[in-house]
Amino acid sequence: MHNDNLNRIYKKNTKHSNLFYKKSLQFFPGGISHNIRFFTPYPFFVKRALGRYLFDVDGNTYTDYWMGHWALILGHSPKNVSLALSKQVKNGTLYGTVNTVSVELAETIQKLMPKAEKMRFATTGSEATMYAVRLARAVTKKKIVVKIIGGWHGFNSSLLASVNHPFDISEGLGLDVDNKYIQSIPFNDLHESFQILNKIRDDLACIIVEPILGGAGCITPNNDYLQGLQEFAKKNNIIFILDEIVTGFRLSIHGAHKMFKLDPDLFTLGKIAGGGLPIGIVCGKSEILSISNPIDKNNKNLICSIGGGTFSSNPVTMIAGLKTLEFLQTNKKMVYSKINELGAYTRIELQKIFDENNIDVKITGIGSLFNIHFLNNNVREINNSNDVALTDKEKLRKYHFALISKYKIFFLPLKMGAISYQHSKADIDKLLTSTRSIIESKIL
Amino acid sequence: MHNDNLNRIYKKNTKHSNLFYKKSLQFFPGGISHNIRFFTPYPFFVKRALGRYLFDVDGNTYTDYWMGHWALILGHSPKNVSLALSKQVKNGTLYGTVNTVSVELAETIQKLMPKAEKMRFATTGSEATMYAVRLARAVTKKKIVVKIIGGWHGFNSSLLASVNHPFDISEGLGLDVDNKYIQSIPFNDLHESFQILNKIRDDLACIIVEPILGGAGCITPNNDYLQGLQEFAKKNNIIFILDEIVTGFRLSIHGAHKMFKLDPDLFTLGKIAGGGLPIGIVCGKSEILSISNPIDKNNKNLICSIGGGTFSSNPVTMIAGLKTLEFLQTNKKMVYSKINELGAYTRIELQKIFDENNIDVKITGIGSLFNIHFLNNNVREINNSNDVALTDKEKLRKYHFALISKYKIFFLPLKMGAISYQHSKADIDKLLTSTRSIIESKIL
Repeated sequence: MHNDNLNRIYKKNTKHSNLFYKKSLQFFPGGISHNIRFFTPYPFFVKRALGRYLFDVDGNTYTDYWMGHWALILGHSPKNVSLALSKQVKNGTLYGTVNTVSVELAETIQKLMPKAEKMRFATTGSEATMYAVRLARAVTKKKIVVKIIGGWHGFNSSLLASVNHPFDISEGLGLDVDNKYIQSIPFNDLHESFQILNKIRDDLACIIVEPILGGAGCITPNNDYLQGLQEFAKKNNIIFILDEIVTGFRLSIHGAHKMFKLDPDLFTLGKIAGGGLPIGIVCGKSEILSISNPIDKNNKNLICSIGGGTFSSNPVTMIAGLKTLEFLQTNKKMVYSKINELGAYTRIELQKIFDENNIDVKITGIGSLFNIHFLNNNVREINNSNDVALTDKEKLRKYHFALISKYKIFFLPLKMGAISYQHSKADIDKLLTSTRSIIESKIL
Repeated sequence: MHNDNLNRIYKKNTKHSNLFYKKSLQFFPGGISHNIRFFTPYPFFVKRALGRYLFDVDGNTYTDYWMGHWALILGHSPKNVSLALSKQVKNGTLYGTVNTVSVELAETIQKLMPKAEKMRFATTGSEATMYAVRLARAVTKKKIVVKIIGGWHGFNSSLLASVNHPFDISEGLGLDVDNKYIQSIPFNDLHESFQILNKIRDDLACIIVEPILGGAGCITPNNDYLQGLQEFAKKNNIIFILDEIVTGFRLSIHGAHKMFKLDPDLFTLGKIAGGGLPIGIVCGKSEILSISNPIDKNNKNLICSIGGGTFSSNPVTMIAGLKTLEFLQTNKKMVYSKINELGAYTRIELQKIFDENNIDVKITGIGSLFNIHFLNNNVREINNSNDVALTDKEKLRKYHFALISKYKIFFLPLKMGAISYQHSKADIDKLLTSTRSIIESKIL
């Protein structure tokens, strides 16, 4: 079956989405408000979501593995969260003041992640990582920020560099000023990383790294890579920042830093921590975060000014985050063993299917996260984003689009998938049989 | 009555808040997640909000003029919004995809504000202004950003400068890199502004200005100031950005730009546009925003990459914004004539009271916004943030704290007040009689 056929099927099934997309183009450049949400020929328009399902405007039901940018570990609108939310929305969505539920959420986070000695609630992950960088520059009085090639920390100007291939050119127009002090190192290559780090360490403020490269393709760290970076940072008084916006409460209720025995100076949370509502959190060592304390400082140059923002600590996000973490805490074993087992099952069985069909594929991932990479003569292993750039992305796009159009299984094309507590073994089996059918119909 | 007495009254009435604040200090530097939310001796903790009221943990009910950072034009949890929200939270809070309700919200905004030829939905105002600056740099290929002394555009690194007095030193540690290309001009002084602008115009990307200086103290523009800046910008191919995050849908349903007959290249919205849920929008001319269109561009250096973000266009914000704007549209005359009349009444009557008592005060404001400035020999008029810096802020703090502690009327100390559709003349009269009592008891 050819791509054209898939397009035909998709278009036939998504006529109203097509109209909505055309309408959307009148208002939004490209018809979207987030670049990655577009895929060809046009994305389907969602009107409702529940559990593991997305419902579109044409009556299609998709099994969702995108799960709100991987944020929805309990699925869409889990009952305990939506019940609490439906009460909260009648009692204020934006107090604009300090409130009790933000203290409860902070206390819950600190109990689960004691390395969050202090924290600041912001509204998005982009804000949290921006503030982490600012804090690092404030305490070190240095300028350079090191990130990973392919690492993703949001759209803030302080970190929007080396995200997409080719990694050594700018991520776009208008970023020159902000990108001047960003340097990038290759994931999983300590030797090369140290060479770069050593050259710039005199003006180096921080190293920021995701424990798993998420947006870059679900790449797990080699033994000792993260430890090596952390050691280098500690030895040279550089702030070591772990970006746990995707991994926090996903890989473990105690964070990837606990799992990988890391001791970051700062780490960022988001996604799951807000229970499906907007949040970003910068947390870490008291001595660093205390520089953001504005109280009783007469001189503004004694503090590092970070947000905050109008929507910070809003009670809707706070209650959704709190109810989500409470559920995870109470049902810890059940939730994590389920999603991790389904994750392992998915990775093993998908790999088997492709192997049996002599399709050169590497399934990456850990816990409830996974992605598929189509290998070729140029790339045999997936250790960093350069490797991913060499894979056959067109094939992955076709595979994901075939899942969407023929089997109503939704991965955001090219992006890793996430399993929620609402997914079942039957869902995974459907993914596996669909994959077999796709291979048989010679789409790839 | 002395300040000590007010403190005693406040502490007596807010014992549980005191405990919560102590607890909050364990988690948050300074016990807050937004610097301005702290006031001495400690802020009261809110547990519920409805209409014009905030309810704290000690059973106090405050008439709220802070109104969620001035976002809640219909008051806390207005029925039509909360009803729609209580349905929506059961049907998904984060689709992570394109959706119908974001198209509806965009269409509504464009109808009300046709100068929003294209737009991008982000999650916070800080993001929206950051993306506006990035777009301006992208299309002009220039670096310098001009803002107003005392102007407030959020905590993003691109614009966090000259916010607090003394304006010519940095807003804090960790901002050097980002602040290098920010220049500031005095509000309402075209002569001085042009002198600065002329010096830097060769590398000038944009001028960003709030139509009313909000955070700086509710300062309205002189005749021709905004027009003059706009004219300078157009003549020199500089992007003119109007930050309407506070004023959009507040001063007029068609924005301050319509009211002041301005034609900004870009403008930002937030607050009211999200109906009490997190939002930030950058909008403006098609030819500028289209540079952010990522589709069919093979070279990433042809586009300006802006967010988006995980929470952009989330259906909860979209529905709250839509229902709010629909209500405003349907009840336009009723809402705006009410809040604007109450605003005028407040400004006139407050001014009278202070005048009658020979207390040297200037009430500033427009529409439903107002602030109080205690004058002295150093400052006779309020035209810009330098003037506000010279006022007796300690007196304003006392006045606001007296309103909070003795009369349960809440202004965030020092900040301007906003009247919502839920406020009544009786509320304003209570504010007036309370002000009289405060003057009589010699607190000021």
